Amino acid sequence: MVQLTPNSSFSVTIRLQLPNRAGSLARVTRAIGEVGGNIGQIDLIDQTRQCTTRDITVDAASTEHAEEIVQSVKNLEDIKVVNLYDRTFNLHRGGKIHIENKIPLKTQADLAMAYTPGVGRVCSAIAQDPDKVYNFTIKQNTVAIVTDGSAVLGLGNLGPAGALPVMEGKAMLFKAFAGVDAFPICLDTQNAEEIVETVKNIAPVFGGVNLEDISAPRCFEIEARLRQELDIPVFHDDQHGTAIVSLAALINALKLVKKAMGEIRIVMNGAGAAGVAVARLLRDGGARSIVMCDSKGIITGDRPNLTPEKREFAVEKGGTLAEAIVGADVFVGVSVPGVLTPEMVRSMAPDPIVFAMANPIPEIQPELVADDVAVIATGRSDYPNQINNVLAFPGIFRGALDCRAKSITQAMYLEAANAIAALVNPSELTPEYIIPSVFDKRVVTAVSAAVQQAARKEGIARS
Amino acid sequence: MVQLTPNSSFSVTIRLQLPNRAGSLARVTRAIGEVGGNIGQIDLIDQTRQCTTRDITVDAASTEHAEEIVQSVKNLEDIKVVNLYDRTFNLHRGGKIHIENKIPLKTQADLAMAYTPGVGRVCSAIAQDPDKVYNFTIKQNTVAIVTDGSAVLGLGNLGPAGALPVMEGKAMLFKAFAGVDAFPICLDTQNAEEIVETVKNIAPVFGGVNLEDISAPRCFEIEARLRQELDIPVFHDDQHGTAIVSLAALINALKLVKKAMGEIRIVMNGAGAAGVAVARLLRDGGARSIVMCDSKGIITGDRPNLTPEKREFAVEKGGTLAEAIVGADVFVGVSVPGVLTPEMVRSMAPDPIVFAMANPIPEIQPELVADDVAVIATGRSDYPNQINNVLAFPGIFRGALDCRAKSITQAMYLEAANAIAALVNPSELTPEYIIPSVFDKRVVTAVSAAVQQAARKEGIARS
Repeated sequence: MVQLTPNSSFSVTIRLQLPNRAGSLARVTRAIGEVGGNIGQIDLIDQTRQCTTRDITVDAASTEHAEEIVQSVKNLEDIKVVNLYDRTFNLHRGGKIHIENKIPLKTQADLAMAYTPGVGRVCSAIAQDPDKVYNFTIKQNTVAIVTDGSAVLGLGNLGPAGALPVMEGKAMLFKAFAGVDAFPICLDTQNAEEIVETVKNIAPVFGGVNLEDISAPRCFEIEARLRQELDIPVFHDDQHGTAIVSLAALINALKLVKKAMGEIRIVMNGAGAAGVAVARLLRDGGARSIVMCDSKGIITGDRPNLTPEKREFAVEKGGTLAEAIVGADVFVGVSVPGVLTPEMVRSMAPDPIVFAMANPIPEIQPELVADDVAVIATGRSDYPNQINNVLAFPGIFRGALDCRAKSITQAMYLEAANAIAALVNPSELTPEYIIPSVFDKRVVTAVSAAVQQAARKEGIARS
Repeated sequence: MVQLTPNSSFSVTIRLQLPNRAGSLARVTRAIGEVGGNIGQIDLIDQTRQCTTRDITVDAASTEHAEEIVQSVKNLEDIKVVNLYDRTFNLHRGGKIHIENKIPLKTQADLAMAYTPGVGRVCSAIAQDPDKVYNFTIKQNTVAIVTDGSAVLGLGNLGPAGALPVMEGKAMLFKAFAGVDAFPICLDTQNAEEIVETVKNIAPVFGGVNLEDISAPRCFEIEARLRQELDIPVFHDDQHGTAIVSLAALINALKLVKKAMGEIRIVMNGAGAAGVAVARLLRDGGARSIVMCDSKGIITGDRPNLTPEKREFAVEKGGTLAEAIVGADVFVGVSVPGVLTPEMVRSMAPDPIVFAMANPIPEIQPELVADDVAVIATGRSDYPNQINNVLAFPGIFRGALDCRAKSITQAMYLEAANAIAALVNPSELTPEYIIPSVFDKRVVTAVSAAVQQAARKEGIARS
């Protein structure tokens, strides 16, 4: 198995009692370093003449690695591990979001305006003119994050409760990056028809619907149905978020290698929700040669039981990924760890571009082909060029809500991708900087503006 | 029509330009007073040598009354109305609640713990041990406020969008009074079966369900089905909230008149959701003689098409409300304005108790029978003895969530009513103080403790 580098997601805080004498802390830090732990914050908790208590926070690479680190400290003489905190679990305790009131309720007058009887006038006004729901309720800024828990991250079908921490995290991103109020809806059904009916039934409160972690091929049908039957934007982030950011990154990567979108040969690996959406948006963005592979190799038209989405990209000549990739200009992976070998990369056309976006472990570790690629991007934050959906969905919904778009369209995705790409100034563009940082504050504004412009052009903006 | 007293729900703020000389403001306040406006805050906005700008906030009794007040000011010479703000509508602009993150997302480490990849470990832990969803997600403190908009306040069937301002207000009450995170779910269906299925489908995120403003008799079936099919508390506030607070008030009112619950004759008017629930809880609380009337008079067993709920309280001998009430000890109204006449009250047994809870205008105006009753209570905040659900539901859910109750039972309602009643010390008890104020901070704690105790006794607490 490919080993991850230590990171905060496996971070543990160890409370230690050490003898209060020179060299004690050094023994601890050495022990942790020797097993590969990455030491962060060290807090002094208490100190007596005999004894010092410290909290040492260590990033590990896995749960097992964290245990190994703790064991290495426990093995030290005279040093006592008093307590262990798993920082990630601690941070999740009680959930990560909550509801707040915009105004206080302290007097009878507050109650009479915010609740009965005053609220009745507002209700009647909305019942008479339904558009007013956007003025006087949370609908104008509220998005449902809907999942059935069938494809949670790379972990598979964990069900609705297992998916909830991800949906809460997503809600946090919506709020932190775009000021959007998003609420998790984790469904106790994986039946497409029931999902569609349920989302339609709860839609009145929401200004938009973000579908999340719903497995293919049901996600295609669910999204298509909801887009058709609801008058608010519906966006499956695993598909379109990934597609928008991938296209943005490819636009800039091609500038570096001086190739044109219409002339390159792209090989994709992965034909799930993300793969299909990426292929479609690259095509709409001008790509003319895309070969799509799944776990069985190149997708050909003569395969039995092809889904409509795979058929859309099926070609005549079959073969393995290794055969497909010979001479290709671009590899786009939205599949599984380690399927791309250095040999395959070396068989590509000159100045190859590799987007290895499997999460959390990419299709190929960038260090293995550092000298063989013109540009490499992953989904990870610890390598350059992180292709992260958070560059897209906050601005997409910010823009759609602000212009009260009736839906979200492929034209908006294209404009959003162009807007993200344009934030990297040509003079700054390097193989290690083809895409803005997720913390670049210009991104949400640029994407939101692009989405609104596209909505007005298409005549689907309502304000 | 019965005229309401001026109150903040019809409050308007008038921005005025007045000549800067003695007597100008007096002319304005006199004009407002003459048409019955109740002046609140007066703010000085700007003052020059010639001219003063002020914001004057005035409570009116209705929309028409507010217009009359404004007109009376406009009629004054030399005084210019610059702007008008409807405070209630202003307060609703953009909605009344929002989502907040419990921790900031400022660094890659924050993202790695709150979102991918760290969140994946929490998801897996919950998938392996479903009980952990209570530890590591919002479920432990989150309630769905579910409505279909079919019976919004006294306004009728306004639909889901028209109901949303009430549900947001309810969410504010949950937060302000009990720290519960509640989120509005306004359904785009009024089909009982679809409502049940939808609520079951979205239940995984919620620790409880508060049904609200769903019309009878569907509300009975929906609540019964959900109680049966969900493993979280389901509570129809219009029924049980009203019932709990009514019983609490009656317990204390009976102390004042020295009558026993088992010996009094109660006449109820209104057999909707609230009426049935109040009757049931009074019965469980010891009442043995309850005659229930609806718009057609006393409900008798020989009526065609009786609902099961009405049949439960049907009697043999029919008649009008006026006939039923002769000699009764207690009148409980959950019906419509003005149906109880002073004559009817004067026909009751000595020391009559009248609960006239129709909202916002009671079955009888208290001033009309001030000398004829021992105790009178209404749903209004501008008379003594306000029977308001906010005394019950925040503490009910606080208690149920804190002990992870599987459901909410009639025994909990009884204990909650007793707890509320007990907060009025016998030495403080007067005809004008039979129930605590909605702002009495002891209420939520007392109700929550009573609910938890009842849950443990019944073996339905899970923590």
